[in-house]
Amino acid sequence: MTTNWPDLDAVQSWDAADPLAACRARFALPVGTIYLDGNSLGALPRATAARVADAVTRQWGTDLIASWNKHGWIEAPARLGARIAPLIGASPDEVIVADSTSVNLFKLLAAACAARPDRSTILAEPGNFPTDLYVANGVAKMMPGRSVRTVPAAQIAAAIDQDTAVVLLTHVHYKTGAMLDMAGITAAAHRAGALILWDLSHSAGAVELDLNGCSVDLAIGCGYKYLNGGPGAPAFLFVARALQQTLSSPLSGWMGHAAPFDFGDEYAPAPGVRRFLCGTPPILAMSALESGLDTFDGTTLAQLVAKSRRLGDLLIAGIEARCVRHGFTLVTPRDPLARGSHVSIAHPHAWEICQALIARGVVGDFRAPDVLRLGLTPLYTSFEDVWQAVDRLAAVMDEGAWRDPAFAERAAVT
Amino acid sequence: MTTNWPDLDAVQSWDAADPLAACRARFALPVGTIYLDGNSLGALPRATAARVADAVTRQWGTDLIASWNKHGWIEAPARLGARIAPLIGASPDEVIVADSTSVNLFKLLAAACAARPDRSTILAEPGNFPTDLYVANGVAKMMPGRSVRTVPAAQIAAAIDQDTAVVLLTHVHYKTGAMLDMAGITAAAHRAGALILWDLSHSAGAVELDLNGCSVDLAIGCGYKYLNGGPGAPAFLFVARALQQTLSSPLSGWMGHAAPFDFGDEYAPAPGVRRFLCGTPPILAMSALESGLDTFDGTTLAQLVAKSRRLGDLLIAGIEARCVRHGFTLVTPRDPLARGSHVSIAHPHAWEICQALIARGVVGDFRAPDVLRLGLTPLYTSFEDVWQAVDRLAAVMDEGAWRDPAFAERAAVT
Repeated sequence: MTTNWPDLDAVQSWDAADPLAACRARFALPVGTIYLDGNSLGALPRATAARVADAVTRQWGTDLIASWNKHGWIEAPARLGARIAPLIGASPDEVIVADSTSVNLFKLLAAACAARPDRSTILAEPGNFPTDLYVANGVAKMMPGRSVRTVPAAQIAAAIDQDTAVVLLTHVHYKTGAMLDMAGITAAAHRAGALILWDLSHSAGAVELDLNGCSVDLAIGCGYKYLNGGPGAPAFLFVARALQQTLSSPLSGWMGHAAPFDFGDEYAPAPGVRRFLCGTPPILAMSALESGLDTFDGTTLAQLVAKSRRLGDLLIAGIEARCVRHGFTLVTPRDPLARGSHVSIAHPHAWEICQALIARGVVGDFRAPDVLRLGLTPLYTSFEDVWQAVDRLAAVMDEGAWRDPAFAERAAVT
Repeated sequence: MTTNWPDLDAVQSWDAADPLAACRARFALPVGTIYLDGNSLGALPRATAARVADAVTRQWGTDLIASWNKHGWIEAPARLGARIAPLIGASPDEVIVADSTSVNLFKLLAAACAARPDRSTILAEPGNFPTDLYVANGVAKMMPGRSVRTVPAAQIAAAIDQDTAVVLLTHVHYKTGAMLDMAGITAAAHRAGALILWDLSHSAGAVELDLNGCSVDLAIGCGYKYLNGGPGAPAFLFVARALQQTLSSPLSGWMGHAAPFDFGDEYAPAPGVRRFLCGTPPILAMSALESGLDTFDGTTLAQLVAKSRRLGDLLIAGIEARCVRHGFTLVTPRDPLARGSHVSIAHPHAWEICQALIARGVVGDFRAPDVLRLGLTPLYTSFEDVWQAVDRLAAVMDEGAWRDPAFAERAAVT
């Protein structure tokens, strides 16, 4: 043990003093598991099963189509959007829940390109979460004269020029956990007359976010990571109020119409962010996401951010104190202001180590070729969780347990 | 009573002899309600609550990310698509479940236009379900030189020409219930070198469909109507096998990638219909749709179609025998081969009549300005349901019950 690594009593006292400690009971965490993968799939809130059952049995089963009015189904996209707004520094009327992250990215990226007709480039980061690059290329392919240019994150602010229509960046990198300077890069984009679109999938619900404070134009994000909405939960999108009347969705479906139930042949976009809705909202999935958002009740973003940083500090200290000698490299920045809420470490045998760790009850995940990700969810990850995870990881390495051939077998989905 | 209208004993004997009669018990129909709106939102299958609860509690809650492999989450879009295939006359590898109907329409319409670069027109029917026209215009707006041309359905086959890239039609019209000649119009499109895209939202699960028999190119459809997938259920799309390698999705998200978990920067479309996936599949909603598809187990399409036609015949006979004298006009074609599985009747006071009927336990719906729709779902609508609905509608009219001012109040969602 080194002086940087507290003993278990110390971290238990931190949990006892944690203002968010009570939130852990809001989740149905599997017994005996330390779940450090909420950055991939948030844990199940205890209230969700009953909430979804109510949507299924009473709302759908008994009230059927009357539920569109009676149970506020038609308002769900805006109602849930307004719940997400305070977590990302937006106004309630700037956020709406709809579709998937990928579909929402297409909508906003195409709208942004159309709003900058004299500029040809979508500027992005190589190695971004792949769907972002794939979708950006899909938009460029469909809009003649547009192309995607990738520049490493560190050089992106300097690369924004008069030909940049929109800058697309993920705020917290899915693999490295590095967090970009939202205020600085947004300002650089605006100085060059470009729009900016932030992907908040690995940020929302766990890290400091102030979209309006940073004058962000557009953002998208995921409902099933830190927002605890369940596997494949509906995603969200943000459009700054000042842009809402000038941008239009390429996916001009009926739910984004000003008067969808007039059933007219001519499309007239809804005022405000609702114009970025497309098809019928997925009500059962929305009910689960609404329950996920309830887990934030009574918390403040400042509390979430402070705890996320302390959890990360502890995890990094533990890795450095107890694991680095086994060949791990810290991928995630050590500076809490430059990282998100997961910590990635690289090791040539990261896959096997990840499996060995899971066998000891610590669930993180692997990202090819050599990264082990450990996610820290301020609502339910305890300081003791982190301490125990480090202890088990150290044991896996000290004992060489990861060398068991059983851990080498690869799953279809990693 | 006229000679065309059987007495209750007779229709009860039809139910007793109905090979699909036992399927009704698969649904949790509200007690005391005759539900004739399965064409808008299918009724709740009895098994769905437990199925969804399992997806929430055991799969998500306990097995968490391991469920992507362990519970076949990653295969859900293809697995459910294969279940839909026999209902629409497709091969299992030609159908996939994803996104909403509107989003799927955008994907396939844009792909079709790109596949016919020398042709400028999307040919559609005026008065089609609005989202189809809105989305078609959205595609045209994004693809320079493309436009949407609308021609009444009766003239559409003759209007297809060398400039038609794709013909977009809804097979059964949402408002009139009229069913178009899929074989004839598809052949006309192909003779002119155009592609065809059928919207099956008001067809799949209730009417005769043979996509491959008709050599259809592309189709989309809804999961929450006759497929009983729940409010806002994921939708499906069909791409004929011969076209799968030549068309590409404009919404090139990671789930349509050949190797999504390689996390590479370059997009490479999956072989086959899976390339039309975009974002992460909505697992909880998929579990409900899978349960909806289970309600078709042990039935044949021929049984469904035969019962749908007989239900429609009975309903039309009842309206003509007992209601037409109150000023109703039959909107839906009388010919069972020219109509879908709902019957629409027009009346200047259709809104109030619809509300008065709901007050008497018969749930249909209203479509502006003057249409009352009554949906017939072969899996759970009984002949007695139809008889009783006609009886109550006749009573509402005979007694003038619809004149109660309470029935004039309009809901937000109609």
